[in-house]
Amino acid sequence: MGIGKIAAQVAHASLGLYRNLIHDRNMTEELGAWEEYGEKKIVLKGTNDVHLQELQKLATEKNIHSYLVRDAGRTQIPEGSITVLGLFGEENLVNTVSGKLGLL
Amino acid sequence: MGIGKIAAQVAHASLGLYRNLIHDRNMTEELGAWEEYGEKKIVLKGTNDVHLQELQKLATEKNIHSYLVRDAGRTQIPEGSITVLGLFGEENLVNTVSGKLGLL
Repeated sequence: MGIGKIAAQVAHASLGLYRNLIHDRNMTEELGAWEEYGEKKIVLKGTNDVHLQELQKLATEKNIHSYLVRDAGRTQIPEGSITVLGLFGEENLVNTVSGKLGLL
Repeated sequence: MGIGKIAAQVAHASLGLYRNLIHDRNMTEELGAWEEYGEKKIVLKGTNDVHLQELQKLATEKNIHSYLVRDAGRTQIPEGSITVLGLFGEENLVNTVSGKLGLL
């Protein structure tokens, strides 16, 4: 994928996850705190689709909110390709899932 | 900026613009249609901060919703740097502002 395509996939993950969170009353306080303190977003590099699915499973086990992006396949990559896993939560907790990944 | 930093800036623009739109009752229908048809996002390449501000001015004149990202300057670039302009609207209308830009 080109840089713009990657950026669009990351935006899909951010928006998809955010939409789930604003509809979850249990997350109102944490989401508000995140917004108040600058909406930190960190983009890390996963290995492949299997890896992202494994990380999502691990996140779910730890009750971390996640959102997996499957691309519609209109440009550059096949339909249904898993491109990005979005995770939201307290940094130390999220790091138990993604802390060993390098920056993209 | 590295690819991950660029992707995070694009995500800031998407989310910032989306948050404005969900609080605008006049945009409910158009936003719903966009979500229903796959939330198309296209990432284009601007020239510099002055260029993005000019494009935003033009968008405002055409009543196109926009969101300008100013980075907090914690990593890679100076505080207050303008990095991304997000635009939302019917494709032909948005193209009157950004249609001549190339894909990033």
